Amino acid sequence: MKIVIIGSGNVAYHFAKAFLQNGIAVAQLFGRNTTELEKISQELNIPYSTKKIEIADLYFICVNDASIQEISTIIPTENCLVAHTSGAISINNLIGNYRKAVVYPLQTFSKTKKLVYSEIPFFIDTEEDKDRETLVNLLQKISRKIGFAKDITRKHIHLTAVFACNFTNHLFARAKEIADKHAIPFDYFLPLIDETVQKIHHLEPKLAQTGPAIRNDNSVLEEHRKLLKDSEQLLIYDTLNQSIKKMYEL
Amino acid sequence: MKIVIIGSGNVAYHFAKAFLQNGIAVAQLFGRNTTELEKISQELNIPYSTKKIEIADLYFICVNDASIQEISTIIPTENCLVAHTSGAISINNLIGNYRKAVVYPLQTFSKTKKLVYSEIPFFIDTEEDKDRETLVNLLQKISRKIGFAKDITRKHIHLTAVFACNFTNHLFARAKEIADKHAIPFDYFLPLIDETVQKIHHLEPKLAQTGPAIRNDNSVLEEHRKLLKDSEQLLIYDTLNQSIKKMYEL
Repeated sequence: MKIVIIGSGNVAYHFAKAFLQNGIAVAQLFGRNTTELEKISQELNIPYSTKKIEIADLYFICVNDASIQEISTIIPTENCLVAHTSGAISINNLIGNYRKAVVYPLQTFSKTKKLVYSEIPFFIDTEEDKDRETLVNLLQKISRKIGFAKDITRKHIHLTAVFACNFTNHLFARAKEIADKHAIPFDYFLPLIDETVQKIHHLEPKLAQTGPAIRNDNSVLEEHRKLLKDSEQLLIYDTLNQSIKKMYEL
Repeated sequence: MKIVIIGSGNVAYHFAKAFLQNGIAVAQLFGRNTTELEKISQELNIPYSTKKIEIADLYFICVNDASIQEISTIIPTENCLVAHTSGAISINNLIGNYRKAVVYPLQTFSKTKKLVYSEIPFFIDTEEDKDRETLVNLLQKISRKIGFAKDITRKHIHLTAVFACNFTNHLFARAKEIADKHAIPFDYFLPLIDETVQKIHHLEPKLAQTGPAIRNDNSVLEEHRKLLKDSEQLLIYDTLNQSIKKMYEL
Protein backbone atom coordinates (compact mmCIF):
# COMPACT_ATOMS: atom_id res chain seq x y z
CA MET A 1 0.00 0.00 0.00
CA LYS A 2 1.44 3.31 -1.11
CA ILE A 3 1.05 6.09 1.46
CA VAL A 4 1.37 9.88 0.99
CA ILE A 5 1.30 12.37 3.86
CA ILE A 6 0.12 15.90 3.12
CA GLY A 7 1.40 18.68 5.38
CA SER A 8 4.64 19.65 7.10
CA GLY A 9 3.51 20.56 10.61
CA ASN A 10 3.69 18.67 13.90
CA VAL A 11 0.98 16.15 13.01
CA ALA A 12 2.49 15.36 9.59
CA TYR A 13 5.92 14.91 11.17
CA HIS A 14 4.68 12.54 13.88
CA PHE A 15 2.52 10.49 11.48
CA ALA A 16 5.54 10.02 9.21
CA LYS A 17 7.81 9.16 12.13
CA ALA A 18 5.33 6.73 13.69
CA PHE A 19 4.96 4.88 10.36
CA LEU A 20 8.69 4.76 9.83
CA GLN A 21 9.40 3.46 13.35
CA ASN A 22 6.98 0.61 12.72
CA GLY A 23 8.29 -0.43 9.33
CA ILE A 24 5.56 1.22 7.24
CA ALA A 25 6.93 3.00 4.17
CA VAL A 26 5.79 6.52 3.36
CA ALA A 27 6.13 7.19 -0.40
CA GLN A 28 5.99 10.97 -0.28
CA LEU A 29 5.55 14.05 1.86
CA PHE A 30 3.61 16.75 0.04
CA GLY A 31 3.12 20.36 1.11
CA ARG A 32 3.89 24.00 0.55
CA ASN A 33 6.53 24.76 3.17
CA THR A 34 9.84 23.77 1.55
CA THR A 35 11.91 24.52 4.66
CA GLU A 36 9.86 22.25 6.91
CA LEU A 37 9.46 19.51 4.29
CA GLU A 38 13.21 19.53 3.69
CA LYS A 39 13.87 19.09 7.42
CA ILE A 40 11.44 16.19 7.86
CA SER A 41 12.57 14.60 4.60
CA GLN A 42 16.19 14.64 5.72
CA GLU A 43 15.50 13.35 9.22
CA LEU A 44 13.18 10.53 8.14
CA ASN A 45 14.60 9.86 4.67
CA ILE A 46 11.28 10.30 2.84
CA PRO A 47 11.06 12.07 -0.54
CA TYR A 48 9.02 15.26 -0.65
CA SER A 49 7.50 17.57 -3.19
CA THR A 50 5.83 20.97 -3.15
CA LYS A 51 4.71 20.65 -6.79
CA LYS A 52 3.52 17.20 -7.85
CA ILE A 53 1.59 14.92 -5.53
CA GLU A 54 2.08 11.21 -6.23
CA ILE A 55 -0.65 8.72 -7.09
CA ALA A 56 -1.12 6.57 -3.97
CA ASP A 57 -3.52 4.17 -2.21
CA LEU A 58 -3.82 6.14 1.00
CA TYR A 59 -3.46 9.86 1.75
CA PHE A 60 -3.25 11.40 5.21
CA ILE A 61 -4.19 15.07 5.26
CA CYS A 62 -2.30 16.60 8.20
CA VAL A 63 -2.92 20.32 7.73
CA ASN A 64 -4.72 23.07 9.68
CA ASP A 65 -8.46 22.56 10.09
CA ALA A 66 -9.17 25.60 7.93
CA SER A 67 -7.15 24.18 4.99
CA ILE A 68 -8.49 20.60 4.95
CA GLN A 69 -11.35 21.21 2.53
CA GLU A 70 -9.20 23.03 -0.03
CA ILE A 71 -6.35 20.50 0.16
CA SER A 72 -8.83 17.62 -0.18
CA THR A 73 -9.63 18.74 -3.75
CA ILE A 74 -6.06 18.18 -5.05
CA ILE A 75 -5.99 14.39 -4.63
CA PRO A 76 -4.87 13.18 -8.10
CA THR A 77 -6.83 9.89 -8.21
CA GLU A 78 -10.27 8.54 -7.35
CA ASN A 79 -9.10 5.02 -6.60
CA CYS A 80 -7.80 5.75 -3.16
CA LEU A 81 -8.63 6.32 0.50
CA VAL A 82 -8.23 9.85 1.91
CA ALA A 83 -8.15 10.46 5.67
CA HIS A 84 -7.97 13.78 7.42
CA THR A 85 -6.61 13.84 10.97
CA SER A 86 -8.66 16.54 12.71
CA GLY A 87 -10.85 16.15 15.76
CA ALA A 88 -13.10 19.07 14.94
CA ILE A 89 -13.84 18.68 11.22
CA SER A 90 -16.54 16.48 9.65
CA ILE A 91 -15.62 13.64 7.30
CA ASN A 92 -17.86 15.46 4.80
CA ASN A 93 -15.35 18.28 4.52
CA LEU A 94 -13.33 15.99 2.27
CA ILE A 95 -14.32 16.98 -1.28
CA GLY A 96 -13.63 14.38 -4.01
CA ASN A 97 -14.80 11.12 -5.55
CA TYR A 98 -12.39 8.98 -3.52
CA ARG A 99 -13.23 6.91 -0.42
CA LYS A 100 -13.21 8.99 2.76
CA ALA A 101 -11.98 8.52 6.29
CA VAL A 102 -10.83 10.27 9.45
CA VAL A 103 -7.93 9.16 11.65
CA TYR A 104 -7.85 11.37 14.72
CA PRO A 105 -4.89 10.94 17.07
CA LEU A 106 -5.78 12.12 20.58
CA GLN A 107 -2.49 13.77 21.48
CA THR A 108 -0.80 17.15 21.55
CA PHE A 109 2.18 17.24 19.20
CA SER A 110 5.33 19.29 18.99
CA LYS A 111 8.28 18.42 16.77
CA THR A 112 10.87 18.68 19.50
CA LYS A 113 9.21 16.21 21.85
CA LYS A 114 9.49 12.44 21.52
CA LEU A 115 6.24 10.54 21.98
CA VAL A 116 5.34 6.95 22.79
CA TYR A 117 3.05 6.27 19.83
CA SER A 118 1.81 2.95 21.20
CA GLU A 119 -0.06 4.83 23.96
CA ILE A 120 -1.78 7.37 21.70
CA PRO A 121 -5.46 6.60 21.01
CA PHE A 122 -6.38 6.80 17.32
CA PHE A 123 -10.07 7.28 16.50
CA ILE A 124 -11.10 5.99 13.09
CA ASP A 125 -14.11 6.84 10.95
CA THR A 126 -14.63 5.54 7.39
CA GLU A 127 -17.40 5.67 4.83
CA GLU A 128 -16.87 2.03 3.83
CA ASP A 129 -16.40 -0.98 6.13
CA LYS A 130 -13.49 -2.46 4.19
CA ASP A 131 -11.52 0.77 4.68
CA ARG A 132 -12.11 0.53 8.38
CA GLU A 133 -10.38 -2.84 8.36
CA THR A 134 -7.49 -1.47 6.30
CA LEU A 135 -6.93 1.40 8.71
CA VAL A 136 -7.23 -0.79 11.80
CA ASN A 137 -4.64 -3.20 10.42
CA LEU A 138 -2.30 -0.33 9.60
CA LEU A 139 -2.70 1.66 12.80
CA GLN A 140 -2.48 -1.38 15.07
CA LYS A 141 1.18 -1.51 14.07
CA ILE A 142 1.60 1.92 15.68
CA SER A 143 -0.73 2.00 18.66
CA ARG A 144 -2.42 -0.47 20.94
CA LYS A 145 -5.35 1.92 21.43
CA ILE A 146 -7.52 1.98 18.31
CA GLY A 147 -11.06 3.30 18.66
CA PHE A 148 -13.92 4.24 16.36
CA ALA A 149 -15.76 7.53 16.41
CA LYS A 150 -18.25 9.08 13.99
CA ASP A 151 -18.25 12.86 13.53
CA ILE A 152 -20.38 13.77 16.52
CA THR A 153 -18.48 11.54 18.97
CA ARG A 154 -15.13 12.66 17.61
CA LYS A 155 -16.17 16.29 18.07
CA HIS A 156 -17.06 15.55 21.69
CA ILE A 157 -13.70 13.83 22.17
CA HIS A 158 -12.01 16.94 20.81
CA LEU A 159 -14.12 19.19 23.04
CA THR A 160 -13.25 17.08 26.10
CA ALA A 161 -9.57 17.38 25.14
CA VAL A 162 -9.90 21.17 24.98
CA PHE A 163 -11.05 21.16 28.61
CA ALA A 164 -8.52 18.57 29.80
CA CYS A 165 -5.51 19.80 27.85
CA ASN A 166 -5.76 23.26 26.23
CA PHE A 167 -7.52 24.89 29.18
CA THR A 168 -5.28 23.13 31.67
CA ASN A 169 -2.22 24.51 29.90
CA HIS A 170 -3.76 27.99 29.96
CA LEU A 171 -4.25 27.71 33.73
CA PHE A 172 -0.55 26.83 34.02
CA ALA A 173 0.23 29.97 31.97
CA ARG A 174 -1.98 32.15 34.21
CA ALA A 175 -0.51 30.51 37.33
CA LYS A 176 3.01 31.29 36.09
CA GLU A 177 1.95 34.89 35.49
CA ILE A 178 0.98 35.20 39.17
CA ALA A 179 4.16 33.43 40.34
CA ASP A 180 6.39 35.58 38.09
CA LYS A 181 4.82 38.79 39.37
CA HIS A 182 5.80 37.84 42.91
CA ALA A 183 9.23 36.43 42.02
CA ILE A 184 8.22 32.89 42.94
CA PRO A 185 10.03 30.31 40.73
CA PHE A 186 7.43 28.36 38.77
CA ASP A 187 9.57 25.21 39.10
CA TYR A 188 8.37 24.97 42.71
CA PHE A 189 4.91 24.05 41.39
CA LEU A 190 5.94 21.19 39.12
CA PRO A 191 5.86 18.41 41.77
CA LEU A 192 2.40 19.63 42.81
CA ILE A 193 1.19 19.67 39.20
CA ASP A 194 2.68 16.21 38.59
CA GLU A 195 0.94 14.86 41.67
CA THR A 196 -2.39 16.46 40.68
CA VAL A 197 -2.24 14.53 37.41
CA GLN A 198 -0.87 11.32 38.94
CA LYS A 199 -3.86 11.28 41.31
CA ILE A 200 -6.46 11.09 38.53
CA HIS A 201 -4.80 7.96 37.11
CA HIS A 202 -6.43 6.03 39.94
CA LEU A 203 -8.96 8.40 41.46
CA GLU A 204 -11.93 10.00 39.72
CA PRO A 205 -11.17 13.74 39.30
CA LYS A 206 -14.45 14.65 40.98
CA LEU A 207 -13.31 12.76 44.09
CA ALA A 208 -9.80 14.25 44.01
CA GLN A 209 -10.89 17.89 44.30
CA THR A 210 -9.14 20.00 46.95
CA GLY A 211 -8.80 23.73 47.61
CA PRO A 212 -10.76 26.54 49.27
CA ALA A 213 -13.88 26.37 47.05
CA ILE A 214 -14.73 22.73 47.82
CA ARG A 215 -14.11 23.44 51.52
CA ASN A 216 -16.52 26.36 51.06
CA ASP A 217 -13.86 28.47 52.78
CA ASN A 218 -15.20 31.90 51.85
CA SER A 219 -12.69 33.85 53.93
CA VAL A 220 -9.78 32.40 51.89
CA LEU A 221 -11.73 32.96 48.66
CA GLU A 222 -12.29 36.60 49.57
CA GLU A 223 -8.66 37.09 50.49
CA HIS A 224 -7.52 35.58 47.19
CA ARG A 225 -9.89 37.89 45.30
CA LYS A 226 -8.20 40.87 46.97
CA LEU A 227 -4.75 39.59 45.93
CA LEU A 228 -5.78 39.30 42.27
CA LYS A 229 -5.22 42.64 40.49
CA ASP A 230 -5.65 41.31 36.93
CA SER A 231 -9.23 41.25 35.65
CA GLU A 232 -8.75 38.10 33.52
CA GLN A 233 -7.22 36.20 36.45
CA LEU A 234 -10.10 37.35 38.65
CA LEU A 235 -12.72 36.27 36.11
CA ILE A 236 -11.14 32.81 35.87
CA TYR A 237 -10.93 32.65 39.66
CA ASP A 238 -14.61 33.49 40.13
CA THR A 239 -15.85 31.30 37.26
CA LEU A 240 -14.00 28.18 38.37
CA ASN A 241 -14.81 28.57 42.06
CA GLN A 242 -18.48 29.03 41.22
CA SER A 243 -18.34 25.95 39.01
CA ILE A 244 -16.71 23.92 41.80
CA LYS A 245 -19.39 25.04 44.27
CA LYS A 246 -22.15 24.11 41.81
CA MET A 247 -20.65 20.70 41.06
CA TYR A 248 -20.59 19.80 44.77
CA GLU A 249 -23.82 21.67 45.57
CA LEU A 250 -22.19 23.97 48.14
CA MET B 1 13.94 18.02 70.27
CA LYS B 2 10.50 16.77 71.23
CA ILE B 3 7.91 17.07 68.45
CA VAL B 4 4.11 16.90 68.66
CA ILE B 5 1.82 16.87 65.63
CA ILE B 6 -1.71 18.22 66.04
CA GLY B 7 -4.37 16.91 63.67
CA SER B 8 -5.35 13.61 62.09
CA GLY B 9 -5.95 14.54 58.45
CA ASN B 10 -3.85 14.11 55.32
CA VAL B 11 -1.29 16.78 56.24
CA ALA B 12 -0.81 15.45 59.79
CA TYR B 13 -0.38 11.92 58.43
CA HIS B 14 2.23 12.90 55.84
CA PHE B 15 4.18 15.13 58.24
CA ALA B 16 4.37 12.24 60.71
CA LYS B 17 5.35 9.77 58.00
CA ALA B 18 7.98 12.08 56.48
CA PHE B 19 9.59 12.59 59.90
CA LEU B 20 9.51 8.89 60.66
CA GLN B 21 11.06 7.93 57.30
CA ASN B 22 13.94 10.28 57.97
CA GLY B 23 14.71 9.16 61.51
CA ILE B 24 13.01 12.05 63.31
CA ALA B 25 10.97 10.94 66.33
CA VAL B 26 7.44 12.25 66.82
CA ALA B 27 6.49 12.14 70.52
CA GLN B 28 2.74 12.41 70.13
CA LEU B 29 -0.16 12.82 67.75
CA PHE B 30 -2.90 14.96 69.25
CA GLY B 31 -6.39 15.52 67.92
CA ARG B 32 -10.11 14.91 68.26
CA ASN B 33 -10.77 12.14 65.74
CA THR B 34 -10.04 8.91 67.61
CA THR B 35 -10.64 6.68 64.59
CA GLU B 36 -8.15 8.50 62.39
CA LEU B 37 -5.58 8.97 65.17
CA GLU B 38 -5.81 5.26 65.99
CA LYS B 39 -5.12 4.37 62.34
CA ILE B 40 -2.11 6.66 61.97
CA SER B 41 -0.80 5.69 65.37
CA GLN B 42 -0.90 2.00 64.49
CA GLU B 43 0.67 2.43 61.05
CA LEU B 44 3.49 4.70 62.20
CA ASN B 45 3.86 3.48 65.78
CA ILE B 46 3.43 6.92 67.38
CA PRO B 47 1.43 7.40 70.62
CA TYR B 48 -1.68 9.54 70.38
CA SER B 49 -4.09 11.32 72.65
CA THR B 50 -7.41 13.09 72.28
CA LYS B 51 -7.28 14.43 75.85
CA LYS B 52 -3.87 15.58 77.05
CA ILE B 53 -1.38 17.27 74.80
CA GLU B 54 2.26 16.72 75.80
CA ILE B 55 4.78 19.40 76.67
CA ALA B 56 7.14 19.59 73.69
CA ASP B 57 9.75 21.80 71.96
CA LEU B 58 8.03 21.96 68.62
CA TYR B 59 4.36 21.69 67.62
CA PHE B 60 3.06 21.31 64.08
CA ILE B 61 -0.57 22.37 63.71
CA CYS B 62 -1.96 20.35 60.79
CA VAL B 63 -5.68 21.13 60.96
CA ASN B 64 -8.21 22.90 58.72
CA ASP B 65 -7.53 26.59 58.14
CA ALA B 66 -10.68 27.54 60.01
CA SER B 67 -9.54 25.65 63.16
CA ILE B 68 -5.94 26.87 63.37
CA GLN B 69 -6.60 29.89 65.58
CA GLU B 70 -8.67 27.95 68.13
CA ILE B 71 -6.24 25.03 68.30
CA SER B 72 -3.31 27.43 68.68
CA THR B 73 -4.64 28.47 72.10
CA ILE B 74 -4.32 24.99 73.65
CA ILE B 75 -0.50 24.75 73.52
CA PRO B 76 0.41 23.81 77.13
CA THR B 77 3.75 25.67 77.36
CA GLU B 78 5.29 29.01 76.37
CA ASN B 79 8.82 27.68 75.97
CA CYS B 80 8.28 26.17 72.54
CA LEU B 81 7.98 26.80 68.82
CA VAL B 82 4.56 26.42 67.19
CA ALA B 83 4.21 26.13 63.40
CA HIS B 84 1.02 25.97 61.44
CA THR B 85 1.15 24.40 57.97
CA SER B 86 -1.34 26.41 55.93
CA GLY B 87 -0.66 28.41 52.78
CA ALA B 88 -3.55 30.79 53.26
CA ILE B 89 -3.36 31.73 56.95
CA SER B 90 -1.18 34.45 58.51
CA ILE B 91 1.45 33.58 61.12
CA ASN B 92 -0.45 36.03 63.34
CA ASN B 93 -3.38 33.65 63.56
CA LEU B 94 -1.34 31.70 66.10
CA ILE B 95 -2.54 32.93 69.50
CA GLY B 96 -0.18 32.36 72.45
CA ASN B 97 3.04 33.50 74.13
CA TYR B 98 5.21 30.90 72.41
CA ARG B 99 7.53 31.47 69.41
CA LYS B 100 5.67 31.31 66.10
CA ALA B 101 6.35 29.85 62.69
CA VAL B 102 4.77 28.58 59.49
CA VAL B 103 5.92 25.51 57.56
CA TYR B 104 3.92 25.31 54.34
CA PRO B 105 4.42 22.19 52.20
CA LEU B 106 3.51 22.90 48.58
CA GLN B 107 1.80 19.62 47.76
CA THR B 108 -1.62 18.03 47.56
CA PHE B 109 -1.99 15.24 50.06
CA SER B 110 -4.16 12.17 50.31
CA LYS B 111 -3.59 9.34 52.76
CA THR B 112 -3.76 6.59 50.17
CA LYS B 113 -1.06 8.02 47.91
CA LYS B 114 2.68 7.61 48.52
CA LEU B 115 4.72 10.77 48.01
CA VAL B 116 8.40 11.51 47.41
CA TYR B 117 8.96 13.96 50.25
CA SER B 118 12.41 15.00 49.05
CA GLU B 119 10.80 16.76 46.06
CA ILE B 120 8.18 18.69 48.04
CA PRO B 121 9.03 22.38 48.55
CA PHE B 122 8.61 23.53 52.17
CA PHE B 123 8.22 27.27 52.73
CA ILE B 124 9.31 28.48 56.15
CA ASP B 125 8.43 31.63 58.05
CA THR B 126 9.49 32.34 61.63
CA GLU B 127 9.29 35.27 64.02
CA GLU B 128 12.83 34.67 65.29
CA ASP B 129 15.96 33.95 63.27
CA LYS B 130 17.19 31.11 65.48
CA ASP B 131 13.94 29.23 64.88
CA ARG B 132 14.44 29.60 61.18
CA GLU B 133 17.74 27.74 61.54
CA THR B 134 16.13 25.04 63.67
CA LEU B 135 13.42 24.43 61.09
CA VAL B 136 15.81 24.46 58.14
CA ASN B 137 18.03 21.88 59.86
CA LEU B 138 15.02 19.70 60.61
CA LEU B 139 13.28 19.96 57.24
CA GLN B 140 16.46 19.49 55.22
CA LYS B 141 16.38 15.91 56.45
CA ILE B 142 13.06 15.50 54.63
CA SER B 143 13.27 17.64 51.51
CA ARG B 144 15.96 19.12 49.32
CA LYS B 145 13.71 22.08 48.49
CA ILE B 146 13.52 24.44 51.46
CA GLY B 147 12.37 28.00 50.79
CA PHE B 148 11.37 31.03 52.83
CA ALA B 149 8.17 32.98 52.44
CA LYS B 150 6.55 35.64 54.57
CA ASP B 151 2.73 35.83 54.80
CA ILE B 152 2.13 37.78 51.59
CA THR B 153 4.45 35.66 49.44
CA ARG B 154 3.11 32.44 50.92
CA LYS B 155 -0.44 33.56 50.14
CA HIS B 156 0.58 34.19 46.54
CA ILE B 157 2.19 30.75 46.39
CA HIS B 158 -1.06 29.26 47.64
CA LEU B 159 -3.08 31.29 45.13
CA THR B 160 -0.81 30.15 42.29
CA ALA B 161 -1.30 26.57 43.45
CA VAL B 162 -5.07 27.01 43.34
CA PHE B 163 -4.79 27.91 39.65
CA ALA B 164 -2.21 25.25 38.79
CA CYS B 165 -3.67 22.41 40.85
CA ASN B 166 -7.21 22.89 42.22
CA PHE B 167 -8.60 24.49 39.06
CA THR B 168 -6.76 22.03 36.85
CA ASN B 169 -8.36 19.14 38.69
CA HIS B 170 -11.77 20.77 38.31
CA LEU B 171 -11.22 21.01 34.55
CA PHE B 172 -10.47 17.28 34.55
CA ALA B 173 -13.75 16.74 36.44
CA ARG B 174 -15.71 18.85 33.92
CA ALA B 175 -13.93 17.13 31.02
CA LYS B 176 -14.90 13.74 32.43
CA GLU B 177 -18.49 14.95 32.73
CA ILE B 178 -18.54 15.67 28.99
CA ALA B 179 -16.82 12.38 28.14
CA ASP B 180 -19.19 10.38 30.39
CA LYS B 181 -22.26 11.95 28.80
CA HIS B 182 -21.11 10.69 25.40
CA ALA B 183 -19.90 7.30 26.61
CA ILE B 184 -16.25 8.12 25.86
CA PRO B 185 -13.90 6.38 28.35
CA PHE B 186 -11.97 9.06 30.25
CA ASP B 187 -8.88 6.81 30.25
CA TYR B 188 -8.38 7.75 26.61
CA PHE B 189 -7.43 11.26 27.74
CA LEU B 190 -4.74 10.30 30.27
CA PRO B 191 -1.81 10.10 27.80
CA LEU B 192 -2.83 13.53 26.46
CA ILE B 193 -3.05 14.97 29.97
CA ASP B 194 0.31 13.43 30.90
CA GLU B 195 1.92 14.92 27.80
CA THR B 196 0.37 18.34 28.50
CA VAL B 197 2.08 18.34 31.87
CA GLN B 198 5.34 16.78 30.63
CA LYS B 199 5.64 19.61 28.10
CA ILE B 200 5.74 22.38 30.71
CA HIS B 201 8.71 20.73 32.44
CA HIS B 202 10.90 22.11 29.66
CA LEU B 203 8.71 24.62 27.83
CA GLU B 204 7.10 27.74 29.28
CA PRO B 205 3.31 27.11 29.48
CA LYS B 206 2.61 30.31 27.55
CA LEU B 207 4.66 28.91 24.63
CA ALA B 208 3.05 25.46 24.85
CA GLN B 209 -0.53 26.63 24.25
CA THR B 210 -2.52 24.77 21.59
CA GLY B 211 -6.22 24.51 20.71
CA PRO B 212 -8.85 26.44 18.74
CA ALA B 213 -8.70 29.69 20.77
CA ILE B 214 -5.01 30.37 20.18
CA ARG B 215 -5.48 29.53 16.48
CA ASN B 216 -8.34 32.05 16.60
CA ASP B 217 -10.43 29.35 14.92
CA ASN B 218 -13.87 30.85 15.54
CA SER B 219 -15.77 28.26 13.51
CA VAL B 220 -14.56 25.45 15.82
CA LEU B 221 -15.24 27.62 18.89
CA GLU B 222 -18.81 28.24 17.69
CA GLU B 223 -19.36 24.57 16.97
CA HIS B 224 -18.10 23.61 20.44
CA ARG B 225 -20.44 26.17 22.00
CA LYS B 226 -23.37 24.46 20.26
CA LEU B 227 -22.29 21.06 21.60
CA LEU B 228 -22.20 22.33 25.20
CA LYS B 229 -25.64 22.00 26.79
CA ASP B 230 -24.54 22.61 30.39
CA SER B 231 -24.43 26.27 31.46
CA GLU B 232 -21.45 25.83 33.81
CA GLN B 233 -19.42 24.05 31.12
CA LEU B 234 -20.33 26.81 28.66
CA LEU B 235 -19.32 29.56 31.09
CA ILE B 236 -15.94 27.90 31.66
CA TYR B 237 -15.54 27.43 27.91
CA ASP B 238 -16.21 31.10 27.16
CA THR B 239 -14.18 32.46 30.07
CA LEU B 240 -11.06 30.44 29.29
CA ASN B 241 -11.18 31.01 25.54
CA GLN B 242 -11.57 34.74 26.11
CA SER B 243 -8.65 34.65 28.53
CA ILE B 244 -6.49 32.79 25.97
CA LYS B 245 -7.36 35.31 23.28
CA LYS B 246 -6.49 38.20 25.61
CA MET B 247 -3.19 36.67 26.67
CA TYR B 248 -2.07 36.33 23.05
CA GLU B 249 -3.77 39.55 21.92
CA LEU B 250 -5.95 37.81 19.31
